[in-house]
Amino acid sequence: MPRAVRERQMMDAAVQTFGQRGYRAASMDEIAELAGVSKPLVYLYLHSKEDLFSACIRREAQALVAAVRAGVDPELPADGQLWSGLRAFFTHTAENPDGWAVLHRQARSHGEPFISEVVVMRDEIVAFVTALIGAAAREAHRDPALADRDVAGLAQALVGAAESLAGWANDTSDVSAKEAAATLMNFAWAGLENLMHARPWQPPADVSRGSADDGTS
Amino acid sequence: MPRAVRERQMMDAAVQTFGQRGYRAASMDEIAELAGVSKPLVYLYLHSKEDLFSACIRREAQALVAAVRAGVDPELPADGQLWSGLRAFFTHTAENPDGWAVLHRQARSHGEPFISEVVVMRDEIVAFVTALIGAAAREAHRDPALADRDVAGLAQALVGAAESLAGWANDTSDVSAKEAAATLMNFAWAGLENLMHARPWQPPADVSRGSADDGTS
Repeated sequence: MPRAVRERQMMDAAVQTFGQRGYRAASMDEIAELAGVSKPLVYLYLHSKEDLFSACIRREAQALVAAVRAGVDPELPADGQLWSGLRAFFTHTAENPDGWAVLHRQARSHGEPFISEVVVMRDEIVAFVTALIGAAAREAHRDPALADRDVAGLAQALVGAAESLAGWANDTSDVSAKEAAATLMNFAWAGLENLMHARPWQPPADVSRGSADDGTS
Repeated sequence: MPRAVRERQMMDAAVQTFGQRGYRAASMDEIAELAGVSKPLVYLYLHSKEDLFSACIRREAQALVAAVRAGVDPELPADGQLWSGLRAFFTHTAENPDGWAVLHRQARSHGEPFISEVVVMRDEIVAFVTALIGAAAREAHRDPALADRDVAGLAQALVGAAESLAGWANDTSDVSAKEAAATLMNFAWAGLENLMHARPWQPPADVSRGSADDGTS
C-alpha cells in the first residue's frame, strides 16, 4: 500500500478519535488500531501525538476552507453567493462532524501550537467573507456607505454566528445543514442587504439618545 | 483590611494577569506582587493557581451575565430589549477587556475544568437570548411561525456573532462598545424582525431548488 494511502488512513482514524474522544483522552494505540496499522508505523509517519494532532488540524482546516471557496460561485449576485457559501459551510461541517469538533473544540482547548493553527484558518475565512460583503456593498451602491471597518465587523459577526450554529447543529439531532444555513441566512441577510443599501437599523429614541448608524460616539 | 477586600484585590490582579499574559504564562508571584500581598497569602485565600483561575472565570462570568440582565428592560419592545442588551454586553466587554479575555480565550484554551465553567455561563446567556427572541416572536404574531428549534438556532447565531465581535472590537483600536452593538444590531435586527413577522428570506431559484424557509429537507 502506498505511503500516501496509509497516511490518509491514519489521519482519518486520528481525526475520528480526536474529534470524538478529545485530544487528551485519545491514545496512539487507539488511533493505530482504528487505522489498522501498528503503533510504531504511526510514529514513523506522523512522529508524535502532537504532530499528528497538528496535521489533523491543518488537513481539516484546508478541507473546510476549500469546501467554502468551492461552494461560492462568484458570478452569482451577493445573496446567492452568501447562501451558497453558507450551504457549503454547513454541509461540510455536518458531513465531517469529527473534523469540525477537531477545529472548533479540540484545537482551541489545548493551548499552543494548536490554537495558532486554527486561528490562521479562521482569519482566512474572515478575509474571504470580508471580501464577499465588501464586494456586495460596492455592487449595491457606488458611494461606499459601508466603511471597511464596518465590513470587517460584519464579517466577524457572520463567522462567529456560523461557528456557533455549526456546533449547535451537530449537537442537535435532526438539524440539517440546509436548515442551519437557512437559519443563518434568514438571520443575517435582511440586515446585510439593508446595510448594503445604506438603510441601517435605527435605535429607538427611548433607549438611546445617540444614533447607532454612524458608528461613532 | 477585611478578608473580602484583600480577596477582591487578589482576584482583580489575577484577572488582569491571566487576561493579559495567559493562564500558563501567568505566575503566582506576579499576581501577588500586583495585588500588593505576599504569595503565601494568595495561596492561603485562593489555594492554587487552578482554583484561582476557576474563581476568576466564575466571577467574570457572573459579572457579565448580571450586566446583560441589568441592561435589558423587559418593558421595552423587542428591538429595544435586544438593542439595550447588546449595548450592555459590548459595554461590559469593552470596559473589562481582561475579564473578557479570561472568559473568551483563556478559559476555553486550557482544558477542563475551565471549559465547563465557561460553558455554564454561555448556556445561561443563550437561554436568556432564546427567551427574549421567543417572547418577541410570540408578541409579533400569535400563531407561532417560529418553531422553538428555530428560536434556539437564532439565539446560537446571535450569541456566536456577539462573542466574535467582542473579541474583534477589543483587538481593534477605536471600535467603541456602541459601534460594536450597532454593527450587530444592524446585522441581526432586520432578519430577526422579518422572521418574527413570518417573512423569511427566500433563496434565489438559481442556487437552490428547495425552499429555505421551512427548515426541513
